[in-house]
Amino acid sequence: MGQQVMNVGLLGFGTVGTGVLEIIEQHQSKLAHQIGAEVRVKKVLVSNLDKERGDLVNKDQITDNIDDILQDDEIDVVVEVMGGIEQARDYMKQALLNGKHVVTANKDVMALYGSELLQTANDKHCDLFYEASVAGGIPILRTIVEGLASDRITKIMGIVNGTTNYILTKMSKEGRLYDEVLQEAQALGYAEADPTADVEGLDAARKIAILGTLGFSMNLDLDDVSVSGITDITSQDLAYCQQLGYTMKLVGIANRIDDKVEVSVQPTLVPHSHPLASVDDEFNAVYVYGEAVGETMFYGPGAGKLPTATAVVSDLVEVLKNKRLGVNGNSAIIPQHDKKLKTPDEIRAKYFLRIHAKDLPGTFASLTSLFNEYNVSLEKILQVPLNEGKLAEIILVTHEVTKKDYDDVLKRLEAEDVVVEVKSSYRAEGEMN
Amino acid sequence: MGQQVMNVGLLGFGTVGTGVLEIIEQHQSKLAHQIGAEVRVKKVLVSNLDKERGDLVNKDQITDNIDDILQDDEIDVVVEVMGGIEQARDYMKQALLNGKHVVTANKDVMALYGSELLQTANDKHCDLFYEASVAGGIPILRTIVEGLASDRITKIMGIVNGTTNYILTKMSKEGRLYDEVLQEAQALGYAEADPTADVEGLDAARKIAILGTLGFSMNLDLDDVSVSGITDITSQDLAYCQQLGYTMKLVGIANRIDDKVEVSVQPTLVPHSHPLASVDDEFNAVYVYGEAVGETMFYGPGAGKLPTATAVVSDLVEVLKNKRLGVNGNSAIIPQHDKKLKTPDEIRAKYFLRIHAKDLPGTFASLTSLFNEYNVSLEKILQVPLNEGKLAEIILVTHEVTKKDYDDVLKRLEAEDVVVEVKSSYRAEGEMN
Repeated sequence: MGQQVMNVGLLGFGTVGTGVLEIIEQHQSKLAHQIGAEVRVKKVLVSNLDKERGDLVNKDQITDNIDDILQDDEIDVVVEVMGGIEQARDYMKQALLNGKHVVTANKDVMALYGSELLQTANDKHCDLFYEASVAGGIPILRTIVEGLASDRITKIMGIVNGTTNYILTKMSKEGRLYDEVLQEAQALGYAEADPTADVEGLDAARKIAILGTLGFSMNLDLDDVSVSGITDITSQDLAYCQQLGYTMKLVGIANRIDDKVEVSVQPTLVPHSHPLASVDDEFNAVYVYGEAVGETMFYGPGAGKLPTATAVVSDLVEVLKNKRLGVNGNSAIIPQHDKKLKTPDEIRAKYFLRIHAKDLPGTFASLTSLFNEYNVSLEKILQVPLNEGKLAEIILVTHEVTKKDYDDVLKRLEAEDVVVEVKSSYRAEGEMN
Repeated sequence: MGQQVMNVGLLGFGTVGTGVLEIIEQHQSKLAHQIGAEVRVKKVLVSNLDKERGDLVNKDQITDNIDDILQDDEIDVVVEVMGGIEQARDYMKQALLNGKHVVTANKDVMALYGSELLQTANDKHCDLFYEASVAGGIPILRTIVEGLASDRITKIMGIVNGTTNYILTKMSKEGRLYDEVLQEAQALGYAEADPTADVEGLDAARKIAILGTLGFSMNLDLDDVSVSGITDITSQDLAYCQQLGYTMKLVGIANRIDDKVEVSVQPTLVPHSHPLASVDDEFNAVYVYGEAVGETMFYGPGAGKLPTATAVVSDLVEVLKNKRLGVNGNSAIIPQHDKKLKTPDEIRAKYFLRIHAKDLPGTFASLTSLFNEYNVSLEKILQVPLNEGKLAEIILVTHEVTKKDYDDVLKRLEAEDVVVEVKSSYRAEGEMN
């Protein structure tokens, strides 16, 4: 084994950056054994040179000038853990153009500019790895890439946002109200002061776009993801879910039939027996269906200093091994297929629907004939009298139907005389494939 | 990228061997991209040269003479998928002694002779990989090894036998009897004609020994595993489990506190909220707790041609990459720590106990004072009158206690006058860590 040294430039020295440096320092010899070369963090980009940094770095290692990293020919790999979007993207792009490999934990940049950066990486025969951008504690991107070597993935479902999963778990299991649980999550550090990106489903949308792009080798943008969040979910909805054998989760779904795909994030009823149903609190999980291997699921923490830093270091080891093998910039990771999105008449799903109707003779018959007209057949029906028998609360779960038929029937229902109000409507998953 | 060719010798050409060859043939260019060299199966060892083999191999490729593989200096890696124990071990050992790397799917050999073979591999600077020996569809050994580079694993729990999980699922969910479900499993090919190794827990014991050895870097033999199977589980036990919020699973457990470990396989009550509880039918799952990353779980098929062959090919790719890197025989995979097993007074667990007692005034008080005497405190108690009030069926779940105290109290209970019979006793897991 040679005593070659491989140099790394680290962009950002916050929580994750510190974790990365700690792991590299503490596991020097193990890493050298895996790679066949020594790993050294040559430079760390920081915004404030004067800040006290402890023993982990010395004065010569830190810089506030990005060119000290981008222009240093000895630096093989740039690790981006600074966060933000435009500047991070700019640095990563320049690094790739200068022939440096890049490891990043930045889901925002990868969801928005991933295809552009992967193309640049490919043009320059460089690696661009981003395991930590999806679910820090779960080696899911690596598993997908390895699986792809001998399989065809047809479905990915992920609980990929810890904040919303925490909120839904507490609402479901403890019967608590959305606002109250959100405040608690903020106090515990599971939710940001401005929780919009989480609770509206945008964070999950970025991650499912990344997963779908990789899994289907097709360039899926954030704009291709149909998104709805958890802010309108009520405790009544959750109670009925439970009663019908489902757990409500915010699920990112990417599925492919023939060569057309659908990518979405929405509150989804998952049967109690499905492995995703028991993913609780702030945990993440990604379920993958491949034609050869069948169903697999990977469960773990979605974020946190050490899980995220561990994922970054795993990517770094991979890049350095590839460099020594001379196989960087493997084209398998850039999208190979043209994007073909399913139209609403091609998307098939089950739906949960809760409506208030007038409790008159013939109400139910007129509703069912309406569903029938749109080819929407029903799997489960629950009817509860409300308001001293003047109203009926009707809860339905459909069989699998096209999104178009379902949307059409929803519109008709809203105009129907016997229907007082459509209270809520969610997607539902069936039993496992 | 060079046009180097790397030669493989395949031992065995049954279901898995065919799958391995198919994957290598169908994914030639993808594999070459990953490794930076071409992979060729130079020789296949079969027992009958005259058998019709289809188009997958030509006449020159097959042999019934092991020396055509072991003595061929061009063959870098031997892939053992022939099954059996002594001969497979012998061939693997000779291959390693001749400086060839080995990939195997053989859990029996690895559980019985793993430490010896790993030592030989280490002495000869060879790789010995065995991902497919534990749960074919789950890349669990790789995940443990990668995790170990920057984490310390303290607990592994696995549902690692598909047959018993299928039987327990059907018994629990459909209220069916053991014998009937076993016959069905045999008809479906999930259970062997002689199911002993599965239902007595031996197959799971082999796998948890392998997982524990790797996870704790400590040489755990099959003899170190305390084993009990599922043959005595009754439908009453399962009904009470359900009622108390648990699901019964055959769980392999390896845990470590300080530097001492416990390894066991037994029917175990898992709380409904634990991710292992919803692993149903013939599926496998392995739950790992690491100090840095926290809780992770990996779920997927435990066996099957393509899942197993996929795992074998992943290992093969890793070996070939390592060879090109010059980092084969990485010492991190042979056990680094001395074996230290926990004694019964150091093993801590919860237990479920079902007893029949005389329904007399003072019975319960005398039982609780007995538990008290042995420091066994109770978390859940359920009492049901039986036999027109003459008997009481008492179901208890303890808090965490030492195995020694629990075994002692069990012995005392059996001798106690008010106790008619100890009907059943199982280990129970708490909520997640």
